[in-house]
Amino acid sequence: MGGDFGVVVVVEAAVAFLENNQDTSLILVGDQQEILAELDRINVAPNERLKVHHASQSIEMDEAPSHALRNKRDSSMRIAVNLVKEGIAHACVSAGNTGALVATARYVLKMLTGIDRPAITSTIPSIHGQTYMLDLGANIGCSSEHLLQFAVMGVVLASAIDEIEHPKVGLLNIGEEEIKGNDQIKHANEMLQQSDLNYIGYVEGDDVYCGDVNVVVCDGFAGNVSLKSSEGVAKTISHYIQEEFRKNLFTRVCGLFAMPVLKSFRRRIDPRCYNGASLLGLRGVVVKSHGGADAYSFQHAINIARLEAVAQVPQLIDTHISKYLKHSNTS
Amino acid sequence: MGGDFGVVVVVEAAVAFLENNQDTSLILVGDQQEILAELDRINVAPNERLKVHHASQSIEMDEAPSHALRNKRDSSMRIAVNLVKEGIAHACVSAGNTGALVATARYVLKMLTGIDRPAITSTIPSIHGQTYMLDLGANIGCSSEHLLQFAVMGVVLASAIDEIEHPKVGLLNIGEEEIKGNDQIKHANEMLQQSDLNYIGYVEGDDVYCGDVNVVVCDGFAGNVSLKSSEGVAKTISHYIQEEFRKNLFTRVCGLFAMPVLKSFRRRIDPRCYNGASLLGLRGVVVKSHGGADAYSFQHAINIARLEAVAQVPQLIDTHISKYLKHSNTS
Repeated sequence: MGGDFGVVVVVEAAVAFLENNQDTSLILVGDQQEILAELDRINVAPNERLKVHHASQSIEMDEAPSHALRNKRDSSMRIAVNLVKEGIAHACVSAGNTGALVATARYVLKMLTGIDRPAITSTIPSIHGQTYMLDLGANIGCSSEHLLQFAVMGVVLASAIDEIEHPKVGLLNIGEEEIKGNDQIKHANEMLQQSDLNYIGYVEGDDVYCGDVNVVVCDGFAGNVSLKSSEGVAKTISHYIQEEFRKNLFTRVCGLFAMPVLKSFRRRIDPRCYNGASLLGLRGVVVKSHGGADAYSFQHAINIARLEAVAQVPQLIDTHISKYLKHSNTS
Repeated sequence: MGGDFGVVVVVEAAVAFLENNQDTSLILVGDQQEILAELDRINVAPNERLKVHHASQSIEMDEAPSHALRNKRDSSMRIAVNLVKEGIAHACVSAGNTGALVATARYVLKMLTGIDRPAITSTIPSIHGQTYMLDLGANIGCSSEHLLQFAVMGVVLASAIDEIEHPKVGLLNIGEEEIKGNDQIKHANEMLQQSDLNYIGYVEGDDVYCGDVNVVVCDGFAGNVSLKSSEGVAKTISHYIQEEFRKNLFTRVCGLFAMPVLKSFRRRIDPRCYNGASLLGLRGVVVKSHGGADAYSFQHAINIARLEAVAQVPQLIDTHISKYLKHSNTS
């Protein structure tokens, strides 16, 4: 029910996703009447692989997570997460209120032993392929223990989804200070050095894109600022390119010739292909789609949930974090 | 003497800058023999507008600022800052060790009354023109008072250099948390609301590039991460564009047609045109050039120093900060 376009986008994405993924079944959770009407509109009937589960409430995009948690026990989000808890669904995907999703998932599914807080992660397109960055905004003021936990979770994801053997882990820092970073970062640096992760040390913001690193670990504030700034730059550059090609008749003709290449370029940096941020550290798979996602974009988020469910990411994290519990407990 | 290319770049930039700016004189501070040899190599003799001032030491790019401060009293950087202190120069430009420059400038020039720490700022190209962002990495763990001081300094710079009448100020935050930001940010938000600055409230990372804001205020860690991430994205996108046009014969032909427009686009996002970060809050003008700057790029840094000296930015900040001292003292 959430996101900027609600049922319309989710229903269209679900139907298209099922066509392309015969191994997957989906349960649409929300206002039954609205969902059935939308399915009817595109001439699809509910079936064994596409079920509808009614929810009488929905959470507003600007609703306080604590309010949603207390007062929206029959919301589409809450019920979808419950289905994961009950083992009826293998994963939950939502385009709704991020804060409410984090709070609901944490409350209903609970954290894995050894993980204190859920972290949000997503793949970032880089020169060498892609980088997992976490946390992207679920946590402000992370301790060194949290940062170590993020590292383990990122490594599990990069190994399981991208099949990288020993993912390289970097700790986000800045290069300008005499004694770099704050106490949390310096301590996390020591802990990561002592761990048996493939830790390459401090990285800076540009390394997320240009560096030889698979997992970048950071506080949620820095991660979110990095991600949003990057989106801003990409938009600005696209805007500049358009302006340059629209300057005059000559540049417009140049643009006609460049069109096929520019289109291929745009597909490559299309944010829709990077939609779907994972909430890690929970006893279940939960994926957050961008609120403004269209049906194409939302399918990417469903696919991430599918991949993580198939790879059993929560179980893998559970196995791996126990190895590091000693480090984080004795520090 | 600093930067990746030392004397060669600075001498070439200085000579070119003087040709284009008849109102300016420059003093080259560093190893006299080396500078004279370089001037000789390009057939230029020292003159009234281009003097050489000997310094027997120089600071290494990776030298600890505290070490430089104690042991390099005859370094080119220290002497250049001394010249500003003594009123012999109106501004100092350095491509050297950032930490050492901040420490030296702070120690020699002292802070303006009401400003606790120097902040690093630079203009960021945006869809609407450019944005001043500060701090970009001189300070980690800023208090709300520091953030307010940054706002005042940014406003003075945007008014004096860009002639914007009531620059719009935004406070960098993230949108994912129920109660946004940490205590420092929330308190700074209240202080900015109570100030008579043109404060527009919280902004996110993408607003630096796409938002209707002139000054973005943030902790140095977040600012540096934002800046470096943005550089990484821009590099990655340039890399993608090149790859797309080099794919095959057809795309190469497309590239030939697109070349003039792409060149114009590249000039527009050329980081060399944004070189020169200002150290604000000091009793004198100090500008940091990127260490990897070439002569073209270094001229931009000299020009920023020239503009700030002409506009008397330190004096303007001194005047304006007194108005806000009450706010920051009573908070």
